[in-house]
Amino acid sequence: MATIAVDAMGSDRAPKPEIEGAILAARHHHVHVLLVGKEEVLSQELAHHRQASRLPIEIVHASEAITMEDKAAQALRVKRDSSMRVGLRLVREGRAAGFVTAGNTGAAMATAKIILGTLPGVDRPALAAVFPTAAGTAAILVDVGANVDCKPQNLEQFAVMGEIYFRSIFGTRRPRVGLLSIGEEETKGNELTRESYKLLKQLPLNFIGNVEGRDLYNGHVDVIVCDGFVGNVALKISEGVVELVREALKDSLRATITRQVGFLLSRKAFVEFKKRVDYTEYGGAPLLGLKGVCIVSHGSSNANAIKNAVRVASEFGQHQINAKIEQELSRLPAEITS
Amino acid sequence: MATIAVDAMGSDRAPKPEIEGAILAARHHHVHVLLVGKEEVLSQELAHHRQASRLPIEIVHASEAITMEDKAAQALRVKRDSSMRVGLRLVREGRAAGFVTAGNTGAAMATAKIILGTLPGVDRPALAAVFPTAAGTAAILVDVGANVDCKPQNLEQFAVMGEIYFRSIFGTRRPRVGLLSIGEEETKGNELTRESYKLLKQLPLNFIGNVEGRDLYNGHVDVIVCDGFVGNVALKISEGVVELVREALKDSLRATITRQVGFLLSRKAFVEFKKRVDYTEYGGAPLLGLKGVCIVSHGSSNANAIKNAVRVASEFGQHQINAKIEQELSRLPAEITS
Repeated sequence: MATIAVDAMGSDRAPKPEIEGAILAARHHHVHVLLVGKEEVLSQELAHHRQASRLPIEIVHASEAITMEDKAAQALRVKRDSSMRVGLRLVREGRAAGFVTAGNTGAAMATAKIILGTLPGVDRPALAAVFPTAAGTAAILVDVGANVDCKPQNLEQFAVMGEIYFRSIFGTRRPRVGLLSIGEEETKGNELTRESYKLLKQLPLNFIGNVEGRDLYNGHVDVIVCDGFVGNVALKISEGVVELVREALKDSLRATITRQVGFLLSRKAFVEFKKRVDYTEYGGAPLLGLKGVCIVSHGSSNANAIKNAVRVASEFGQHQINAKIEQELSRLPAEITS
Repeated sequence: MATIAVDAMGSDRAPKPEIEGAILAARHHHVHVLLVGKEEVLSQELAHHRQASRLPIEIVHASEAITMEDKAAQALRVKRDSSMRVGLRLVREGRAAGFVTAGNTGAAMATAKIILGTLPGVDRPALAAVFPTAAGTAAILVDVGANVDCKPQNLEQFAVMGEIYFRSIFGTRRPRVGLLSIGEEETKGNELTRESYKLLKQLPLNFIGNVEGRDLYNGHVDVIVCDGFVGNVALKISEGVVELVREALKDSLRATITRQVGFLLSRKAFVEFKKRVDYTEYGGAPLLGLKGVCIVSHGSSNANAIKNAVRVASEFGQHQINAKIEQELSRLPAEITS
């Protein structure tokens, strides 16, 4: 049974979703959960759940919590006993197979990099966002914020790591890997993508060339590689568009009484749609390239999201993704990974 | 009465939308339209519209047409008598106050830059996309594809040009100008945005700092500045998300009979929504920084889109946007505009 550490102080509504998610995970996914946070708060909250005492859930005390407002560097310096740091230390010491946090993403990345370190051959860990496509499949976008100014070698490593992750977690034999650019031809794009293209096409993976923004969600590509600036902008624009469409549709649907009827009738469909594009089903964003397993979930995570993140953290270890990353990166020409 | 040249061979369904759009523009916007393209084809098509003979519409012959598949550089070299080139020459020679094309964007940008040249103080012309926000206002994103690798000075010029354009066309006294980045603080973003921030905050305009992807559509900012790679990715992702949401909602709405009723009732609302976010209402994307007026419309433009683009081209001249751009750029410190 894998042991997964969960940052119980991370999410916007912590520790409730974390505790409920831990209970769900322990019950359904055959995992042992270490809830990391203020012991008093957590044991009080756990006491509300009768079944918890019969499940493999333990509390590991950490006296501090990093907030969403904390700056990453400062959080690291000042909060030496944060739930994030304590949780990641459990991974480093081999007491947990992975760590899950729905807290401050920047702080999680910085802390993980320092506490766990990076795998040989990895210059920079990358955050991979997992999302649904119109084809009903999942896709990942890597990097979505860990690295803003990238070199072609970074994108090459993101491609290798993202492909292994996708292949392992989603069971796709030859995931399609694409480079996010602004035109299909090799010569299209900016300096970074043009140079990266040359490296990616030499990799022993199913590289389908440049893909465009609209391909993120149409299911034509599984692993989309870009620098962290573009990736982060992409994610946030997507949120913005969904919001715009929702608001505009709501207004239109309410404009007349007949349509109001239509709106009421289709409300359930909206709820279902929301569920369908629900990131919580995919269990959060893995930080790829670390000596250890760290899954970052959305700050607004609910219990289901935490449960799925715990499952993903456990699968991450089972599939030996890190060993595969290390192995495949070691096969790249030396000048590329150094 | 302003004279506007219209590329009659540009759009996907040319020359129909161009001719109908020219008729609408000549009738409603007090403009004189020069339809540029193959005379035989155009006069035949015009003959189908009885009222056209009484409107200020003329045909200017051009023997060639650039297709969407043509590469920009090649189109320029090989097709010396293209409707795009002939139309832009009419602007250069002062026979037209502006040019509208729904053709190949890359070719339009390259041809306009060569035929018209850039304004003093402008290193690179920029393409500004105009779109609706959830607040019911318009916003522009500049650059959306003309310049992939930018320097801070380029973004500074985009900000000045975009602000003048927005102010003039939408009548906003102090448009809010934002820099597209991945965090609000000045220190967030990549090297380009951090350096650009320093320049933008010194400009005599209403700079509100960094904005994020989700701000594109929420109406919190009027003029959003970014490099052409990020801008182009942003636009195409937006298209992709709208498509995803539409498909997913359609599926959900059709899932049960009650919802099918809901779907039928709300179909009209969908159509209205589509109209509301319809770029055609905004009249296409202006190319800013040229010695002349050039408006690029979407390849799928209908007559209404062409009509609005002609109106925008005419207003561009009336508001003396180019004179203002030249003037305001000349006030920037010399090392910045050179």
